[in-house]
Amino acid sequence: MPVLEEVLTANEQYVRTFGDRSELALPPARRFAILTCMDARLDPAKYAGLSEGDAHVIRNAGGRASDDAIRSLVISYKLLGTAEWFVIHHSDCGMEFFTNEVMGGLLESSLETAALGADGFYDVGAGPGSPAGREIDWLTISDREQSVVEDVAKIRQHPLVPSSIPIYGYVYNVRTGGLEEVEAATAAGRAA
Amino acid sequence: MPVLEEVLTANEQYVRTFGDRSELALPPARRFAILTCMDARLDPAKYAGLSEGDAHVIRNAGGRASDDAIRSLVISYKLLGTAEWFVIHHSDCGMEFFTNEVMGGLLESSLETAALGADGFYDVGAGPGSPAGREIDWLTISDREQSVVEDVAKIRQHPLVPSSIPIYGYVYNVRTGGLEEVEAATAAGRAA
Repeated sequence: MPVLEEVLTANEQYVRTFGDRSELALPPARRFAILTCMDARLDPAKYAGLSEGDAHVIRNAGGRASDDAIRSLVISYKLLGTAEWFVIHHSDCGMEFFTNEVMGGLLESSLETAALGADGFYDVGAGPGSPAGREIDWLTISDREQSVVEDVAKIRQHPLVPSSIPIYGYVYNVRTGGLEEVEAATAAGRAA
Repeated sequence: MPVLEEVLTANEQYVRTFGDRSELALPPARRFAILTCMDARLDPAKYAGLSEGDAHVIRNAGGRASDDAIRSLVISYKLLGTAEWFVIHHSDCGMEFFTNEVMGGLLESSLETAALGADGFYDVGAGPGSPAGREIDWLTISDREQSVVEDVAKIRQHPLVPSSIPIYGYVYNVRTGGLEEVEAATAAGRAA
């Protein structure tokens, strides 16, 4: 079955069992937000125990504290009342396996998907490509725990983030499903 | 129980039942990605029928095609092989209830959470505030379907997005749980 049909069929099933979720209010009931990676293996609702209506979930490549993630977090607290935030990166993240230089080169060579070979190098692929990838900061990760520390600090220091909001730094382990605290990040993320 | 303790307790339960999810591969098995809103009422895994390992999920305030969302989508296809994308906004989105001007003013007045009154206006709150919110494009939404059309078009026209990737435009109905197609967006998002 094509992906589109599969998604719509699954959605029909969800609608049939939707029940009183139709009454949920807009502001998150449990008043917190999670910033985490788009990785397919991560299901924040499952790994953090969320039901619909509980918490904001912001996801991007790496779970990075990009300007857009901070835009979302500021809206989350200022207009919708979240009062605690989690930054959760994870083990075996794709963002650890390339650099801005590599990504810029791959996109310049070809817009086709680049397979990662057993030798640890991406194939170059057939053209056409685009030089536009050279101008983007891809927010890659070279040290998993350090990236959490940096992102918590970046959010903590943002002029629109009130000092009263605790920010917890964690790494999700894709082999166990467990959340492992990055103590330096969490300590830096505590309310001032 | 404090939020942090609740999350960690829920996570311990998840770890105990994690089973063979420990063997999941990094690339999304079903080769697609969803861009949707951070709204607490939305659970994309549930509304689209995803298991861990199936698909990338990118979320921000509004489900908007920000530069950061496009960064994530380009990584998703170029390095991890997704071949179809969904842009899914939703009814009753908080992004419909303010403008850049309102948000800039609220943040300049106070960094405290602004409650939305029964009169449809946000309270101003006690200071201190920050003028930094005036410099941010908050990516608010004035027309729900039009925002999906615009975001699909923005992704479709990006120089790093190959023409072979179909992009489907939908609105999630928070009262029914259903996905409703935005036909103009999906048509514009079809492969060239």
